[in-house]
Amino acid sequence: MAGNIFGTAFKISTFGESHGKAIGVIIDGCPAGLAIDEAFIQSELARRRPGQSAIVTQRKESDTAQLLSGVFEGKSTGTPIAIVINNKDARSKDYSHIADRFRPSHADFTYTKKYGHRDYRGGGRSSARETAARVAAGAIAKLFLKEKGIQIHAYVSQVGALKMSKSYQELDFAQIESTPVRCPDVELAEQMIAHIKEVRKAGDTIGGVVNCVVQGCPVGLGEPAFDKLHADLAKAMLSINACKGFEYGSGFEGVKMRGSEHNDIFENQDGIIRTKTNYSGGIQGGISNGMDIYFRVAFKPVATIVSAQNSVNQEGEDAEVVGKGRHDPCVVPRAVPIVEAMAALVLTDHYLRQEIVRL
Amino acid sequence: MAGNIFGTAFKISTFGESHGKAIGVIIDGCPAGLAIDEAFIQSELARRRPGQSAIVTQRKESDTAQLLSGVFEGKSTGTPIAIVINNKDARSKDYSHIADRFRPSHADFTYTKKYGHRDYRGGGRSSARETAARVAAGAIAKLFLKEKGIQIHAYVSQVGALKMSKSYQELDFAQIESTPVRCPDVELAEQMIAHIKEVRKAGDTIGGVVNCVVQGCPVGLGEPAFDKLHADLAKAMLSINACKGFEYGSGFEGVKMRGSEHNDIFENQDGIIRTKTNYSGGIQGGISNGMDIYFRVAFKPVATIVSAQNSVNQEGEDAEVVGKGRHDPCVVPRAVPIVEAMAALVLTDHYLRQEIVRL
Amino acid sequence: MAGNIFGTAFKISTFGESHGKAIGVIIDGCPAGLAIDEAFIQSELARRRPGQSAIVTQRKESDTAQLLSGVFEGKSTGTPIAIVINNKDARSKDYSHIADRFRPSHADFTYTKKYGHRDYRGGGRSSARETAARVAAGAIAKLFLKEKGIQIHAYVSQVGALKMSKSYQELDFAQIESTPVRCPDVELAEQMIAHIKEVRKAGDTIGGVVNCVVQGCPVGLGEPAFDKLHADLAKAMLSINACKGFEYGSGFEGVKMRGSEHNDIFENQDGIIRTKTNYSGGIQGGISNGMDIYFRVAFKPVATIVSAQNSVNQEGEDAEVVGKGRHDPCVVPRAVPIVEAMAALVLTDHYLRQEIVRL
Amino acid sequence: MAGNIFGTAFKISTFGESHGKAIGVIIDGCPAGLAIDEAFIQSELARRRPGQSAIVTQRKESDTAQLLSGVFEGKSTGTPIAIVINNKDARSKDYSHIADRFRPSHADFTYTKKYGHRDYRGGGRSSARETAARVAAGAIAKLFLKEKGIQIHAYVSQVGALKMSKSYQELDFAQIESTPVRCPDVELAEQMIAHIKEVRKAGDTIGGVVNCVVQGCPVGLGEPAFDKLHADLAKAMLSINACKGFEYGSGFEGVKMRGSEHNDIFENQDGIIRTKTNYSGGIQGGISNGMDIYFRVAFKPVATIVSAQNSVNQEGEDAEVVGKGRHDPCVVPRAVPIVEAMAALVLTDHYLRQEIVRL
Repeated sequence: MAGNIFGTAFKISTFGESHGKAIGVIIDGCPAGLAIDEAFIQSELARRRPGQSAIVTQRKESDTAQLLSGVFEGKSTGTPIAIVINNKDARSKDYSHIADRFRPSHADFTYTKKYGHRDYRGGGRSSARETAARVAAGAIAKLFLKEKGIQIHAYVSQVGALKMSKSYQELDFAQIESTPVRCPDVELAEQMIAHIKEVRKAGDTIGGVVNCVVQGCPVGLGEPAFDKLHADLAKAMLSINACKGFEYGSGFEGVKMRGSEHNDIFENQDGIIRTKTNYSGGIQGGISNGMDIYFRVAFKPVATIVSAQNSVNQEGEDAEVVGKGRHDPCVVPRAVPIVEAMAALVLTDHYLRQEIVRL
Repeated sequence: MAGNIFGTAFKISTFGESHGKAIGVIIDGCPAGLAIDEAFIQSELARRRPGQSAIVTQRKESDTAQLLSGVFEGKSTGTPIAIVINNKDARSKDYSHIADRFRPSHADFTYTKKYGHRDYRGGGRSSARETAARVAAGAIAKLFLKEKGIQIHAYVSQVGALKMSKSYQELDFAQIESTPVRCPDVELAEQMIAHIKEVRKAGDTIGGVVNCVVQGCPVGLGEPAFDKLHADLAKAMLSINACKGFEYGSGFEGVKMRGSEHNDIFENQDGIIRTKTNYSGGIQGGISNGMDIYFRVAFKPVATIVSAQNSVNQEGEDAEVVGKGRHDPCVVPRAVPIVEAMAALVLTDHYLRQEIVRL
Repeated sequence: MAGNIFGTAFKISTFGESHGKAIGVIIDGCPAGLAIDEAFIQSELARRRPGQSAIVTQRKESDTAQLLSGVFEGKSTGTPIAIVINNKDARSKDYSHIADRFRPSHADFTYTKKYGHRDYRGGGRSSARETAARVAAGAIAKLFLKEKGIQIHAYVSQVGALKMSKSYQELDFAQIESTPVRCPDVELAEQMIAHIKEVRKAGDTIGGVVNCVVQGCPVGLGEPAFDKLHADLAKAMLSINACKGFEYGSGFEGVKMRGSEHNDIFENQDGIIRTKTNYSGGIQGGISNGMDIYFRVAFKPVATIVSAQNSVNQEGEDAEVVGKGRHDPCVVPRAVPIVEAMAALVLTDHYLRQEIVRL
Repeated sequence: MAGNIFGTAFKISTFGESHGKAIGVIIDGCPAGLAIDEAFIQSELARRRPGQSAIVTQRKESDTAQLLSGVFEGKSTGTPIAIVINNKDARSKDYSHIADRFRPSHADFTYTKKYGHRDYRGGGRSSARETAARVAAGAIAKLFLKEKGIQIHAYVSQVGALKMSKSYQELDFAQIESTPVRCPDVELAEQMIAHIKEVRKAGDTIGGVVNCVVQGCPVGLGEPAFDKLHADLAKAMLSINACKGFEYGSGFEGVKMRGSEHNDIFENQDGIIRTKTNYSGGIQGGISNGMDIYFRVAFKPVATIVSAQNSVNQEGEDAEVVGKGRHDPCVVPRAVPIVEAMAALVLTDHYLRQEIVRL
């Protein structure tokens, strides 16, 4: 009911506010016997962490994941895996100035009206800090998927109007982490970085797009009618802070095509049935068909800007809001591991669900 | 697990194959005391029905909804409402030619590989016929929302490359049903109709976009962190057959904007806090803020075309597939009531969930 | 939320009122490839049906199950299986006399206060007629369990003060159906039948106990911490109309024992680890241990009696209630197939869940 | 799927093993605005804690609950409330002797066979230590119920063959905490204490029964058909370690009664409709009727005994098991707060669910 639980067979429950004592997650449904590589969890958190490069927020958060349960002698036991990430002694006074007023395009207003009582410090539960718990859980999902031969690669394909023209097949995913903007088209990456710096200098922010490709996915993942694989991916992505859109396969562009162009013709390639083209994005009828799954995720410009903005306070009186704190000029570089984590959670969930559809 | 149940507080379970005996739905969680207008359910089904105009499939389906339970003396009783729609004696022989082969960009291949055993007639469970059950359930959700002052209007904004340039504020929603293509920009509608006819004449199909606007939604609907209102809308839309993308508010275009442009400034308008602009699309932090909610849904060209296509059969041998039966040249006119139904289900669900978030 | 859905992996949604058009069920999660024996479903319904013998209600209900979906060429397809059982043209006028008053120990009062608006005919949704849907779904679960070598046998062990002294090991389950009271201790069965007839003659009703034994269950079914196998069995049984209690293994009597007596010693019997005694009732730590699972279910005397009873009406005024219609003098003979059905649903659900707990 | 989540609207996820770093719980769905009294949570944990009296285990556990989220300035915010209880540096070596062998009537065998890999220290996840998380969550549920005027009192009514003959109406609930055995019949309590000491002296254990009474519950809680209030209570109770049975109202004894005796006659008492008797146990048709709800819960003798017992090891070879560590001679005194906690969770859940059943 309250919306902090995600997944069906591989189910995560997250908790925590930006400036509370800790954030964290319980994973219920991780199969027993999975080797849990804590260093890998930590490395995934490092990819999401603030302060990792010159183009992201300079806040310092160490984000150390503590495993509290569900792992014994390095392997999952099948019981719930709890992970807690303590919050550092956050400078809560930074937020007193917004305690009674609503920052534009933040959740201050909606949380206040919904709940009547909110933790205003740093956005509380609405802060993107909550996504660290997802990345930790997603790391364990990735360890599961690795055992099954499934890889997930996300990357930045657009920052503002700078849009990649290359298809994912032309890219070297090994280059994703080679630039702080996580765009494997290195030339474009440099332009993106320069653009983000310029935007930041102007005290402003800019949006972007993250693409994601899933490779090695077996045929059969996804459930009719509502839990189609792409429907669950869409929900997963739209649940990430600042996300505004999702498209897979041919997406919004595909609407211009004719059926005769868009249809993916099946053929037998050395005993494996594949499609010649892949406008379907690896999913047909909501079920993976063995081809690459690919999708795009849109992120709006971060709402926190340096300039003063008009707004209202809790009493409905005019009240100015001035950006303080250290925020991201563009969210997409840090969104990359979050998109991957959410994709990993969805795929793991559907992998397990698929195990029991036949007698 | 098996994905045929949708919603949390207002929960629907659907069943049925294209050429089985019947399709239908159980609604569990409809509040007691709601006047159930059966004629309205029927009129919503009529909007989705094949054969309703010259630009949709000419199949004949009467789609009569039978209420089996949960309604007494014209009002809901709070117990499950079951609705069954019998399938007419479908001409199953039409489908024997595809029993053993996989139609391109249909779910024949994925269902076969997933389940091992499938009802191939008319696509079975993967047929868009299943959406009639959603429309019936959505009609009841609409009756609930009407009591709460919430209206939902969907319309066709794009067919192929013919894209509406008007914003929804410039449209008269009363015109939506005045053209068979359900585009309230009447001039554009005529072009769309002509285009669809031309495509059909060529034995081909074309994609399109459906826009949807929700008005009168109170502040507070939507749940952090995963069940954000727009995340549940995205899943709902992507679960509709042929859907390839979802965006809300500023969407994919918004990524090009700067935060200073994109932020929606709050102001007090005669005692009600509203935003000057609405790039947020009526949702902030996953929770409705009282402004109009609007979103766009992309649909691919229908996969069934008249021309012969290469494919493979169950044995992996080359096999030609020829379109038979009567299919839609463009899905969006009939998708309009389905988009509305799914939106109504999501909003009703979140309306009820919101009732219990405060002491 | 609304409580008409049961199960996790093998999930059923039921609907229907006693005197509405029909009752029924959707099963979501039945694995594909299961042979669906419709005659077996029908035979299970016959075991629950009114009018089957001299000691049960003489109402006439034909209870014909119609399969509407999810089965193709005799086998399940993995998609939802919908079953509808039409209600005969019930003599609704029989119930007009209770439209405004509350029968003692029925749900008339609580439904009215809960929902404000209720279908009073024959108890509406609170009628035990709803259990026919469970028996139909349970029949499919039994077909699944049969494939896995699991058998379920329930029988009547007590009617009023007539209590069986034999353990289940001393019984011949093949005798269960040989008497209308479904007690395999044939001598006791005759006493029970005589007692029920006497009670009925007095215009009264009497309670009883149903025992159930599950054999052939593999080790490993049941999930910590909340979904222990016996916890889900308890809920399943207590959800049956008129049920007042559940105990498994040593049950309430076991509290008098000492640990040294009660502990079930493990031993290796030809390579299979078994326990010497089975006070655990086949379940340890909530998980099946491979031994027989057995439990007992208490049913109160049926609330409908022939004699006039004092009560109040909707306005809170004194109002007499007189039993009309044809009702069971004792519920347990017909409860036997319902107990089995609910046990089958729980076991099938946990069988599927167990499939995915290991890497 | 994995069974560590309980509840629908007020949902808890628990985690943790006996000898891992910590145990804990996330509550998702606690309404905003509830005053969270941390001292009360702590006092409830103290009632469950080992070492609290001479008749319970002498293990030392401090059980300090840490609130990590969901509470701001003393009140719930509507976001998840996470509570963590660190495990003390447990003497894990105590358990090396059982690493490879199965203690009789424990979950060692079933966990090993189910998962393949288990944390054997102190029973791991199967340890009753997990119930501390339930008590912490239950304390918050009790705070909610207090606001609604609902009180829950559990007490010990039987130890071994020593069974209370008084009804709950004859008891003074204020006396429950006055004896370490939590039996408010002070004379009987002394006998129980003496009996438990004698059993412990013999190196043995004994079972018992906990009764529970819910007062002040409004009419209307509980959902047909499966989530009947007593069905959810039964599951809640049976999910507690060592529980073997549940009965409510007239329970197993009630089966001997005739309908004419058992029926609870409605009457108007100063404008409130009540029943003269209460064999229904405050629940009719699965829905609370405003009368006291009462039920009984059976607990088996604790499986850990001092004497050596025969068993087998993981290889199926004969292996002796000797009880080490400090264990309870009788579980019921400490089960009292756990029964109350589980009842509080069920009632809070159904209280919230009931809020949305009417238009």
